[in-house]
Amino acid sequence: MNTTDPLIIAGKSYSSRLLVGTGKYKDFAQTREAIVASGAQIVTVAIRRTNIGQDPNQPSLLDALPPSEFTYLPNTAGCFSADDAVRTLRLARELLDGHELVKLEVLGDKETLFPNMPETLKAAETLVKEGFKVMVYCSDDPIQAKMLEDIGCVAVMPLASLIGSGMGILNPWNLRLIIDQAKVPVLVDAGVGTASDAAIALELGCDGVLMNTAIALARDPVLMAGAMKKAVEAGREAWRAGRMPKKLYAASPSSPTAGLIGS
Amino acid sequence: MNTTDPLIIAGKSYSSRLLVGTGKYKDFAQTREAIVASGAQIVTVAIRRTNIGQDPNQPSLLDALPPSEFTYLPNTAGCFSADDAVRTLRLARELLDGHELVKLEVLGDKETLFPNMPETLKAAETLVKEGFKVMVYCSDDPIQAKMLEDIGCVAVMPLASLIGSGMGILNPWNLRLIIDQAKVPVLVDAGVGTASDAAIALELGCDGVLMNTAIALARDPVLMAGAMKKAVEAGREAWRAGRMPKKLYAASPSSPTAGLIGS
Amino acid sequence: MNTTDPLIIAGKSYSSRLLVGTGKYKDFAQTREAIVASGAQIVTVAIRRTNIGQDPNQPSLLDALPPSEFTYLPNTAGCFSADDAVRTLRLARELLDGHELVKLEVLGDKETLFPNMPETLKAAETLVKEGFKVMVYCSDDPIQAKMLEDIGCVAVMPLASLIGSGMGILNPWNLRLIIDQAKVPVLVDAGVGTASDAAIALELGCDGVLMNTAIALARDPVLMAGAMKKAVEAGREAWRAGRMPKKLYAASPSSPTAGLIGS
Amino acid sequence: MNTTDPLIIAGKSYSSRLLVGTGKYKDFAQTREAIVASGAQIVTVAIRRTNIGQDPNQPSLLDALPPSEFTYLPNTAGCFSADDAVRTLRLARELLDGHELVKLEVLGDKETLFPNMPETLKAAETLVKEGFKVMVYCSDDPIQAKMLEDIGCVAVMPLASLIGSGMGILNPWNLRLIIDQAKVPVLVDAGVGTASDAAIALELGCDGVLMNTAIALARDPVLMAGAMKKAVEAGREAWRAGRMPKKLYAASPSSPTAGLIGS
Repeated sequence: MNTTDPLIIAGKSYSSRLLVGTGKYKDFAQTREAIVASGAQIVTVAIRRTNIGQDPNQPSLLDALPPSEFTYLPNTAGCFSADDAVRTLRLARELLDGHELVKLEVLGDKETLFPNMPETLKAAETLVKEGFKVMVYCSDDPIQAKMLEDIGCVAVMPLASLIGSGMGILNPWNLRLIIDQAKVPVLVDAGVGTASDAAIALELGCDGVLMNTAIALARDPVLMAGAMKKAVEAGREAWRAGRMPKKLYAASPSSPTAGLIGS
Repeated sequence: MNTTDPLIIAGKSYSSRLLVGTGKYKDFAQTREAIVASGAQIVTVAIRRTNIGQDPNQPSLLDALPPSEFTYLPNTAGCFSADDAVRTLRLARELLDGHELVKLEVLGDKETLFPNMPETLKAAETLVKEGFKVMVYCSDDPIQAKMLEDIGCVAVMPLASLIGSGMGILNPWNLRLIIDQAKVPVLVDAGVGTASDAAIALELGCDGVLMNTAIALARDPVLMAGAMKKAVEAGREAWRAGRMPKKLYAASPSSPTAGLIGS
Repeated sequence: MNTTDPLIIAGKSYSSRLLVGTGKYKDFAQTREAIVASGAQIVTVAIRRTNIGQDPNQPSLLDALPPSEFTYLPNTAGCFSADDAVRTLRLARELLDGHELVKLEVLGDKETLFPNMPETLKAAETLVKEGFKVMVYCSDDPIQAKMLEDIGCVAVMPLASLIGSGMGILNPWNLRLIIDQAKVPVLVDAGVGTASDAAIALELGCDGVLMNTAIALARDPVLMAGAMKKAVEAGREAWRAGRMPKKLYAASPSSPTAGLIGS
Repeated sequence: MNTTDPLIIAGKSYSSRLLVGTGKYKDFAQTREAIVASGAQIVTVAIRRTNIGQDPNQPSLLDALPPSEFTYLPNTAGCFSADDAVRTLRLARELLDGHELVKLEVLGDKETLFPNMPETLKAAETLVKEGFKVMVYCSDDPIQAKMLEDIGCVAVMPLASLIGSGMGILNPWNLRLIIDQAKVPVLVDAGVGTASDAAIALELGCDGVLMNTAIALARDPVLMAGAMKKAVEAGREAWRAGRMPKKLYAASPSSPTAGLIGS
């Protein structure tokens, strides 16, 4: 499925446009079950919180989600400076035998988890120089998103709303500016709360969506994971199918919202 | 699929919650292809505009979409009075060998196609008395939706926005009032423009969605039909899965939008 | 002020476009202070709840707000049938020496206070025949708003959102349909929660706004009353001044939202 | 008026919370008339576009709006780098006899006019060191807004939406994060399109609003200027008055949107 419309990141093709996190589940069994239901091929791993071999006496995520089955995307959740983030990803590369595809996030404070963009730009520069393939979490600032692309990041990942908020896409206009100018994939990261949020992201022209809380903290995570799979596919197909124009009413001679998002 | 969560209308079970119209396609072949892709089991037919045997010399929809495969829902599109609507559905019953499940719509004017609620209530009363099983297109007025249910309609179908406008759900709050009180299925009818609109309707708790223009007037109707199928399933599953609460930010002690739609 | 742009209702000119209710204040002194601050010239009176002489032993609103200073608008708050509403307004006419300008509202249930439109239409017909000048609270249904105008109501007053909800204007599109077709004044009634809500109503082209809770239940009702006065004037003047077009960005060749509400 | 609730910027009190630009009018006479109607006490001047003495043979804004009457706020409109912006404001200080209060804006590109935040941070640092009192145009990024405050800016001025777009406040949630943490005044700058937009900004808790296009490009700029004056006052007073809670309906036991913006 989707083989005619793959997502290509750093030269590799994926049929799924839904990327998921591995945190906040009750155990690795539930993690696996939900992730399989989501159809995701890329899974993020918070290196500072998840055992992928750092502690050989604890269950390892590598057993639940073998890297042969899933593309790992080590991330820097919990890092508040460029230095911390760079250090964390170097450790990940070591733990994962030279793995280069990573997700950079440098947060601005412990409450809102809004990205710290100056530190993000600094870390991105270092990581790209060190040969990492950097997917980067960022604010929805089109100028700084472009800077991250120019530095050499392989994907830009603006927030829809704050991490763990479930508020959906607060400013589709900024996303549109980012999408219109980007030559690398744009994925919405953070803020998706339910299925329609994911569909909207794809309908806007995003190349993919990354989420964790919306699945893990649903009442039934596995059912929600399946819903998200369908929502992402529905949003992408609707974008490809070319929606009808919005009109005040059908008989209206002109479209009142021509050029508007989603029109 | 969906056999554990069927839509039940007038005592009959359907696995699909997406109902589709049959108008505005370029020919019956495209009509059929799109409708099959949508997975719809119930299809509406505008008796005044579609040949289902009135003219034996023209191609008949009955050949493209055999009633053995699809549940027909004759509708009164183009009727502006209770009398017209009742007459039209009596004709449909004749043409369709006693078929009782119908969709009533009485429009208020030729421009906006907003429903004429007084005439709708009058027609509903007559039709129910004559043994029809009436699914009824209506405004999003919760009091009049309740009246239609009390008259004996088997489903109420409030508009999301004007017919053919593609504006999506303009007032989710009224829909919520209707859903909260209804004991018959509530289906959004009219106004859906793209996949996320359909998902939102189901996430609000609607039992189904009826659409025509959003599929038929997409650039690629068949691809959009498939997107709509997934969007409806995604929205329903997200509703069943119980979404995460919305919060200002993850660390926020309380949900800022408790009780809010979709929270 | 505003003498060049008066609101005309039933042939009489008013310089203020803000109408206010008289309920929910802590006493008649606060009622008067807030209403004076609002600049309102028309005040609604819930005949079933407010003493305007029914009980000669209680303080009367007529003393706090002398009818020589304010135009009284007796209303039918608390009526759930046409009969009740008609009876109540006949009583009001008696108590107020033949006063003809009234506000009709017939509610659908005790919880949501959504209007009962069939009973509203019935009552309007009777009242107009009996010589009342009827300003009528209604849903935002453009077809039924037109019916009320055709019956002879002197103003139609669609809800912005439910009475006492403070949710603001939930469906500006329906209001626009009503405004575009109406030949009598259209006033938003119910749902205004704060100053910007009132400004938006006027910017949409409404002729006025009626509110009660937004002022009476503000932390500081008198300060809020003054805010509402300015907001209504600001909204009206902005509407008259003709706002700039909305554009994706200033350099954008065309307006992306031409024809959109408020664009 | 407003003497009990002044706006204090860099130690100086202003009774008006509306700041206006001086560009885009047809001539200096209209500029003056509109600005007087707006009640603004602080006016921005684009040093690169407006004659304030650079060309002694052309009419000077200083004659139309004498600095004895208005506080000048020289800005760096048209600057795309920190160096350019710093140079421009040094020139302004010279032209205006040591004037220190300035508005910094460094833009990211010529199309969207979105701020370039890294260059803005750099310029702010230099300007503060050189003794300027810097009011700074910025994105709605709460982390970088805080950095600008920490550098020593006397006010932060996040965009509501793009300069000249008239799209209103696209992301009130980010504004709220900025307002909640700021110890200097927060003023919305850019994007206001009509009166209600200005009222909403103040209701959110912003300390003021700066606008230019919304007044200058209204059909009737002087009338719109007066509308904006009232809207800003209305929004501020509504904020101080403490609005009623939003509820699904009046009888609803709890507020469905507690904690929500504007609730």
